[in-house]
Amino acid sequence: MLKFDENVYRENARLTFETREEIENIADDITKEGFTNIFFISVGGSISIMWPIQEMLKQLSDIPVFSEQAGEVILTGHRQLTKESIVVMASKSGDTKETVACAEWCKAQGFRTVSLVGTPGTPLGAASRWVIPNRAKNGVEFEYMQLFLLVFKLLYNANQFHHYKRFADQLESLPESLLKAKEKFEPVANDIAKNYHHEPYNIWIGGGEMWGEVYLFAMCILEEMQWVRTKAVSSSEFFHGTLELVEKDVPVFLVKGEGKRRVLDERVEKFCKQRTKKLIVIDTRDYELDGIDDEFRWILAPAISSALLVDRLARQYEKYTGHDLDTRRYYRQFAY
Amino acid sequence: MLKFDENVYRENARLTFETREEIENIADDITKEGFTNIFFISVGGSISIMWPIQEMLKQLSDIPVFSEQAGEVILTGHRQLTKESIVVMASKSGDTKETVACAEWCKAQGFRTVSLVGTPGTPLGAASRWVIPNRAKNGVEFEYMQLFLLVFKLLYNANQFHHYKRFADQLESLPESLLKAKEKFEPVANDIAKNYHHEPYNIWIGGGEMWGEVYLFAMCILEEMQWVRTKAVSSSEFFHGTLELVEKDVPVFLVKGEGKRRVLDERVEKFCKQRTKKLIVIDTRDYELDGIDDEFRWILAPAISSALLVDRLARQYEKYTGHDLDTRRYYRQFAY
Repeated sequence: MLKFDENVYRENARLTFETREEIENIADDITKEGFTNIFFISVGGSISIMWPIQEMLKQLSDIPVFSEQAGEVILTGHRQLTKESIVVMASKSGDTKETVACAEWCKAQGFRTVSLVGTPGTPLGAASRWVIPNRAKNGVEFEYMQLFLLVFKLLYNANQFHHYKRFADQLESLPESLLKAKEKFEPVANDIAKNYHHEPYNIWIGGGEMWGEVYLFAMCILEEMQWVRTKAVSSSEFFHGTLELVEKDVPVFLVKGEGKRRVLDERVEKFCKQRTKKLIVIDTRDYELDGIDDEFRWILAPAISSALLVDRLARQYEKYTGHDLDTRRYYRQFAY
Repeated sequence: MLKFDENVYRENARLTFETREEIENIADDITKEGFTNIFFISVGGSISIMWPIQEMLKQLSDIPVFSEQAGEVILTGHRQLTKESIVVMASKSGDTKETVACAEWCKAQGFRTVSLVGTPGTPLGAASRWVIPNRAKNGVEFEYMQLFLLVFKLLYNANQFHHYKRFADQLESLPESLLKAKEKFEPVANDIAKNYHHEPYNIWIGGGEMWGEVYLFAMCILEEMQWVRTKAVSSSEFFHGTLELVEKDVPVFLVKGEGKRRVLDERVEKFCKQRTKKLIVIDTRDYELDGIDDEFRWILAPAISSALLVDRLARQYEKYTGHDLDTRRYYRQFAY
């Protein structure tokens, strides 16, 4: 696979799963202290991978869940955000400006934060009550794994996710399946990038547990790292505006989920199939998860999608556009 | 003003404000019955005008507030949505498929719905516990006025918005100020539409109480009614991806709010001013609200913005594109 080292990937998987006990202990600690609601707070890609979990919790838990953009909530506060809340944050670099400011703001008010921190010794860790070391060098799927362990252990402790142990045990085998999925997707990614990397406008659609994925790939990868123009819209909202822009030569990328809202994705698929020659469907169902029960697939679907898109498809775009994924004109290049 | 009848507008204002007592009685009724949280549920433009109010309630109220897309929530449910909730819905036509289905789903489960219904005798009204007649022929600002009356009366009843009476009294004069705002904005709208109606790609930015406005205008007006390509992003999230697409010839439309998050809009403005020759700033502060206290301006800002954009700017686009605002290729043209 292009610019991919299987050994490093397996090592990242190992480093991630190694934190299971640490994460579970943190969850138990939080449970012991008690909490009334969960706030997912971060920015950009880090908040967008929390949205899928928020969607899942709507269905799985009685605990109220809110999500906020770090730079926004410190300006307004949120009346539901109190000392009784648990704040979940994440930053790969550990020094994302808005997230660090928010963690410090939370700390000053006695709000308890648990953070996924990708870089040890960075300010986010210092401002957080609990730190989950996000040791994998890269791979959004590993961040998902840690968030799953944290949140579903909290749910288990609250008697709201009885099969936690089975879920967490099976999670260990996820990376091996994702490796196979990446391999299977590689030629598909090559074709997609080859055919569409020069498109002047791209509609990206998904919903439910997959909305964060669509948002992340369109904005944090295609826009930020490839300077490709996108419009991301949810499968349900697509029919209230964006549909009018579909024409036979407009590329539409649909990321299908495996949960209860899949019918909304299928409606998009059916509609677009008849109206554009450039419909690209990314369906996580096409990828096997060995040793993982089917009932968990809808939960893991965003991690599959990330493994395919953020990693493989991004690399293939880079190859065809010739635009290095690390090249930015503005982002973190100077103060703004 | 282009395709605008002041007398009709004043009549719409009168018809709207006439419902004040009816709305307050409904709010009192709801208060008497009691409720534990508020769910804003609708689709497209109707849900997007509820988001500003959700944003406001984060700051103003201890009542937990959630918003859901009608077509989504009926597939998954939401564990916070119970018989103790109050569901707020809206549909101008009164027959929006997803909204009606959701109202019926709520009714079947004993969830109490209060709906703004634009067309009497339509299915949404039949499925709702309480109906607020949205009598104005058009004008999103009138829907805002009714939502403000409903929600802030509920807050007043809960001792969380003490100045309700003054606010509601002053609200009566809002349309007259909006009329003046429209007149002042008319030549600006003309210039914007003239200069930018042919742009192949348009970035729309706003945040906080204005995010719904940006979302609505980009998707429900420019995309749906004008087939103009857009990317809408919040002022805070802009810096986590979309910023990389700004170049000197890329049009960026910024809708500034008047609340605590205005600093985020100002950050966007400062950044974009240096990087595109095509920065268009729509600032509600440029428009006077006679007889309305300054402390209410941030609440009314989305209504000002709607009065300018959804009405005036849309008409001016129509003039230059020659694309009738009522022409659709797909939306409601056939079953899908």
